[in-house]
This record gives sequence, structure tokens and C-alpha cells, in this order.
Amino acid sequence: MTSDSPRPAVVLVSGGLDSATILAIAKSTGFELYAISFDYGQRHRFELEAASRVCAAIGVKRQIVVPLDLRAFGGSALTDEIAVPKDRSDAQMSDGIPITYVPARNTIFLSVALGWAEVLGASDLFIGVNAVDYSGYPDCRPEFITAFQQLAGLATKSGVEGTAAWNIHAPLISLSKAEIIRLGVKLGVDYGLTHSCYDPDPTGRACGHCDSCQLRLKGFADADLIDPAPYASR
Amino acid sequence: MTSDSPRPAVVLVSGGLDSATILAIAKSTGFELYAISFDYGQRHRFELEAASRVCAAIGVKRQIVVPLDLRAFGGSALTDEIAVPKDRSDAQMSDGIPITYVPARNTIFLSVALGWAEVLGASDLFIGVNAVDYSGYPDCRPEFITAFQQLAGLATKSGVEGTAAWNIHAPLISLSKAEIIRLGVKLGVDYGLTHSCYDPDPTGRACGHCDSCQLRLKGFADADLIDPAPYASR
Repeated sequence: MTSDSPRPAVVLVSGGLDSATILAIAKSTGFELYAISFDYGQRHRFELEAASRVCAAIGVKRQIVVPLDLRAFGGSALTDEIAVPKDRSDAQMSDGIPITYVPARNTIFLSVALGWAEVLGASDLFIGVNAVDYSGYPDCRPEFITAFQQLAGLATKSGVEGTAAWNIHAPLISLSKAEIIRLGVKLGVDYGLTHSCYDPDPTGRACGHCDSCQLRLKGFADADLIDPAPYASR
Repeated sequence: MTSDSPRPAVVLVSGGLDSATILAIAKSTGFELYAISFDYGQRHRFELEAASRVCAAIGVKRQIVVPLDLRAFGGSALTDEIAVPKDRSDAQMSDGIPITYVPARNTIFLSVALGWAEVLGASDLFIGVNAVDYSGYPDCRPEFITAFQQLAGLATKSGVEGTAAWNIHAPLISLSKAEIIRLGVKLGVDYGLTHSCYDPDPTGRACGHCDSCQLRLKGFADADLIDPAPYASR
């Protein structure tokens, strides 16, 4: 790799609004993009289809989809047969850790991304965590990201060989949903390609009522924009 | 759970000598054992068969085998079509990071184990890493284990709710192979059930010449014991 060639970065892409935005941010920063998505036993396939659409639209060097069935141990409404809550108030949504929390998910996803990055010779990872709207998720907080960055330095060859340090980029961590959307629109993201809903109808249209839909719709409203994604009802 | 019922612990079990020993240590400490193994694209199935034999012999409450195909990104002789080195000298084996290092493997495995432990309500994890004989592996060092324990506290519900702290037990980390074997024999481990070889013959007999076989055979010799596992040649 010469000093002129773009540096590789591994980007975690779920197919949601946040991950499409970080893909665009990483691209605008000049990185060569390696996207990693996980087939972790989600309740539906629309998220992974959105991930592939977003990667194709923004332009990645390569996308891999890693099968990693977290249903092996359950414990979340996103992977178990537990009902997804609907039409919750702001107070309800911000009370405690949501049932949609998947135990250790971001730790697991970042770890696998770290392994791939090491193989690629990359030292930059991008993750679309957000501590504002997802304050109930322990692994969306800045202190988690900092701790993972420290771990990465000790867990890999660079820790032994004293080479390049790791950068875990979480550029959305302190932005509101409206700020994320405005930033993405400025970078040319087509949010009509993304999928955020926890409980879509059989054709893939968003329900408009789960926590994720509510946060997303409020974000577009706060940004004075219309969500281009298809909804069954709003 | 009453204070009398045994506390659950998640134990990483590969089917090798070290993981059989930590299973026996965790049992002797009084934990209820939950074993986790990974089907990560190993070159052969004998390791996973050994893991199941060891779990059955020592007695676990439950064993899960998580499919997690690390061949998706390659980079190691253990998952790629790269030749396993044979008959290397001590100097060669301790020079740099071995080709059998799997990028970020222990980080990935501990992360998945962490998720399962959180679902089970466990706060104890056991991993059979060893910093003496595997000094070339970055993720077998004490500073890695310490960093992961800190991360675990921030990555999970306990980090938000301020409940029980995590204990990542690595009881073999500073023991020689001979010391590990002596300890296991004292605890009743049948090492004939375990599998360590990177390159067994088609019937599952160990090659006796890869780094893993050499370390194992030297460990038994230093402990003045005979390895009961089957070898094609020694």
C-alpha cells in the first residue's frame, strides 16, 4: 500500500439509518470501505437486504455478511419470540434497558469486525452507535467505545508488535436523530434504501409504531423532512 | 436463585487440554457449568467432538456450539488453506506471532460468551488462555484479560444498572504445560478425551509434529507422564 492509496476502514452496516450515515461519513473522509453485516437471527430479512442496497448505493470495495446465530442463547425481543413493544411514550422508551437490547451485541460485532480489519491491514472501524436516542443500551455509550479501543490494542498483533493504534470511530454518538439525518442528507444518503423497523409487514413496510420507527419518524419531523421509506401506517 | 444454589459460570471449551482443565477447575470451585464451543471453520471436526466428550465426562449443565464461520475473512493457518508448520524448534515457535493465530479469536469468543452469560445471569467466565507457551498470541496475555474484564462491565446491563461485576477467570495464564497437566490429573481430567493437534490424520490421531503437539508432548514429558491421547507418530 503506497501512501497515496486510500486507507481501508471496516464499517458495521446493519441496513438502518445510522449505519448508512456512517458509511457516507467514512467515504467522505476518504477511506476505502469494507462493510460487514451480520445475519444474527433477526426476526426478518429486510434489514440485511437494506444493508446490501446501502452498500451498493454508497459504493464499497467489499461487503461480507457473517452468519452468527445469536438465537443460540436468546434473551432479546429482536432474536426471541418476545413481542416488540409498540406506541410507547418517550418516558417509557427511556426507562431502563429495552427488551430489544441484544446481550453484548455491539461487543460481538466489533470483535468480529476487528478480526477482519486485522486481516485487511486496517486500523479504523466505524460503528453507528448513538448515546442520545439509545441511552438505555449499555454498549452505545462513549465509555464502551473507549474501552473497546483499548481492548483492540491489546487483543491484536499491533499490541504485541507495537504498530499502528486502533481508531474506533463512532461519529454519531452524541448527535440527535435529526442531526444525523441532516448530516446524511448533506452527504447524499438515500434514506429510502434503509430499514429501521423492528416489526415490518410481510412486504417489508415499516410498522410506524415500534420504538425504532418512532425515533426515526420523530427525527425526520425534527429535521423538517419527510422519511422516504415505505410505511404500512404512521 | 437462592444463596445455596451453585452459581453459573460460562466456560469456553475448545476440546483441547487447557479447556478440559479449566472445566475441571470451575467444577471444583463449585460453579454450575455452561460450556460454549465454536464451530468456526476449523480444518477438522475432531476438536469439536473432543469438546462434547469432555463436557459429558466432566458434567456440564448445558453445552452450546455456536456456528461462527471465521473463514469469511481468513488470515490464519487454522481456518485458511495455509500449511501448518511442523517440527519447529523452540526458538522458531517462540519467534513472533504464529501463523496459527486467528485474528481477534479470543476477543470474539469471549464476547459471545459474555452475551450468553448475561442471558443466564452469570457473571463468571472461564477461558483457558496461557501466556507461557503461547507467548506469541496477543490475546493470551494477562493485560488482554484485564482489558476484557473492564470492557465487560461497560458493555452489559451491569454497567448501566451497577449490579454484579464480571470475573474473567484465566486460571492457567501463568502455568507451564506440565503444571497444567499435573493440576488436571489431580482433578481427575482424562486427557485421552482431549484433542490438541492442528493437523490430525483422517481417523483423528494427532500428528505429533505441529507446534500444538510438540508443546503438549513436552508438557507430559516434563510432568513425567504419558499422554493417553492417540498419535499417528511421536
